[in-house]
Amino acid sequence: MSGAAADLAGSPFTGLSAFPLTPLCDDAVDEYAFASIVSRLAASGVDSITALGSTGCAAYLTSAERERVGRLALEHAGSVPVIVGVSALRTSQVLTHVDAAAEAGAVGVLLAPTSYQPLTDREVLELYRTVTEHTDLPVVVYDNPGTTHFTFSLELYAQIAQLPGIASFKIPPMAPETAGERVAAVRAVLPEHVTLGISGDACAASALLAGCDGWYSVIAGTCPQPALEIMRAAAGPQPQDALTASERLEPLWELFADHGSLRVVAAIAEHLGLAPGDCLPQPLLGLSPEQRERTAEAVAELGLR
Amino acid sequence: MSGAAADLAGSPFTGLSAFPLTPLCDDAVDEYAFASIVSRLAASGVDSITALGSTGCAAYLTSAERERVGRLALEHAGSVPVIVGVSALRTSQVLTHVDAAAEAGAVGVLLAPTSYQPLTDREVLELYRTVTEHTDLPVVVYDNPGTTHFTFSLELYAQIAQLPGIASFKIPPMAPETAGERVAAVRAVLPEHVTLGISGDACAASALLAGCDGWYSVIAGTCPQPALEIMRAAAGPQPQDALTASERLEPLWELFADHGSLRVVAAIAEHLGLAPGDCLPQPLLGLSPEQRERTAEAVAELGLR
Repeated sequence: MSGAAADLAGSPFTGLSAFPLTPLCDDAVDEYAFASIVSRLAASGVDSITALGSTGCAAYLTSAERERVGRLALEHAGSVPVIVGVSALRTSQVLTHVDAAAEAGAVGVLLAPTSYQPLTDREVLELYRTVTEHTDLPVVVYDNPGTTHFTFSLELYAQIAQLPGIASFKIPPMAPETAGERVAAVRAVLPEHVTLGISGDACAASALLAGCDGWYSVIAGTCPQPALEIMRAAAGPQPQDALTASERLEPLWELFADHGSLRVVAAIAEHLGLAPGDCLPQPLLGLSPEQRERTAEAVAELGLR
Repeated sequence: MSGAAADLAGSPFTGLSAFPLTPLCDDAVDEYAFASIVSRLAASGVDSITALGSTGCAAYLTSAERERVGRLALEHAGSVPVIVGVSALRTSQVLTHVDAAAEAGAVGVLLAPTSYQPLTDREVLELYRTVTEHTDLPVVVYDNPGTTHFTFSLELYAQIAQLPGIASFKIPPMAPETAGERVAAVRAVLPEHVTLGISGDACAASALLAGCDGWYSVIAGTCPQPALEIMRAAAGPQPQDALTASERLEPLWELFADHGSLRVVAAIAEHLGLAPGDCLPQPLLGLSPEQRERTAEAVAELGLR
């Protein structure tokens, strides 16, 4: 954790943010399962909950489903702040989701430049401008080239960060050996009040040690404990312990790399009874029986629950 | 055109298919403009019209908007067969679109494996299996890695082509110098009744000469005449004339390459009065004033109308 983090104490855009699944059952949101997952997270000690992120399968849900899921998240999160994902292909749909998030009581919104036609820098900047002009809710800029296929330049980061209302950047995975350099380069173009959160669970420990203020975490949305251990170690007197705690989870990170983190946490949630079988929206298919067996072995070995 | 094309005479999945824009005005479909574009295409001599493709901005429209646009296309296409795009991120939404297309009277549906989470081969095969089992409408497999970010292998082409109901493959651009080899390789894995249509207007002439049965065309959806000239030349006694006709359009192909074909045809449609200003769904922005000027010059130079 960087020195800058001290100035941001109490910001809902620092620390560990847990990204819950939105489990489906027979092509409808399993509201009971979702509410139960959120309640579990609320009691776990995570710093925030981000509903309807990539892990929350927001891209696959209708606006009506998303409104309902956002409300459920707020109803079951207790005193834990909730950020709501509002990404959509069309700007007017994004604004609809922003309004629903505000109405539900979110502390902020998470927005990625999702695309069908590849977007230009100008289009992405205008998207963030439109949203920040539309709402008073703080906005988390979600940089996820693996799903959006949009590549942010540092120059564009800087332009977007100047917009009033931009609260945080959720940045993509970085190699541990270059984390220090990368975090410094990103930090250099952001105003001090804008936080920097890492995504890509496998590299979170090294990114936190390199100065990120927070971790937008997939695994924390299903099994928060091991993520909390890493987070606490990174903020504690022996930050290097975060790396050791992360290395212990290597079997999990390998599964994430092989099958995508979403399919793996869905299989874990199903295995632990937190979600019904085949809880992903088709065309996404769950892991194969062999892959599930390997996942169950990792769950047992790592004591995930 | 290959010899195989003769066996497919009368198939709606050969020849020139025109992909109309779906112009928006104040974030709502401009139904009058869309119907006018379709009527113009119906009178132009194109072999089919494909509504709600990538150029039709289907990815940005709600299911209700898409149902309405599909109906309008059929109402205004006269005797020209209409294919309707049904792609969506969630399989159940695809099936909703398929049902609407069938109800409207489409001769077939166009389906791309659009993704948010990257899809596996198994997931894409299951998507096509689900759709072909759900409907009697012929399915055009839409391979568009530029927007779906999914890469088909020839093995997956072969597996999908075996499904009953697969009528055609819409394949991505290929370099003219490798077109013969590529078309032969694709043809080798497809049953004889499945047609092969090129997309990527700039390479259409060479792909037709290399044996493609049809051309799924962006420019034909807005200005059909130059595309019809290329198509007729390719099927005529001097097929090489298709290359000359295509070379003449080089200023247009350069604009497509620089800004994406959608933004350019939207600017052309606006320039020609076929669509209202700023007809693309935001966050997509139209061309800049300078880019529009260059486009207008190309329109004048090439006599597009």
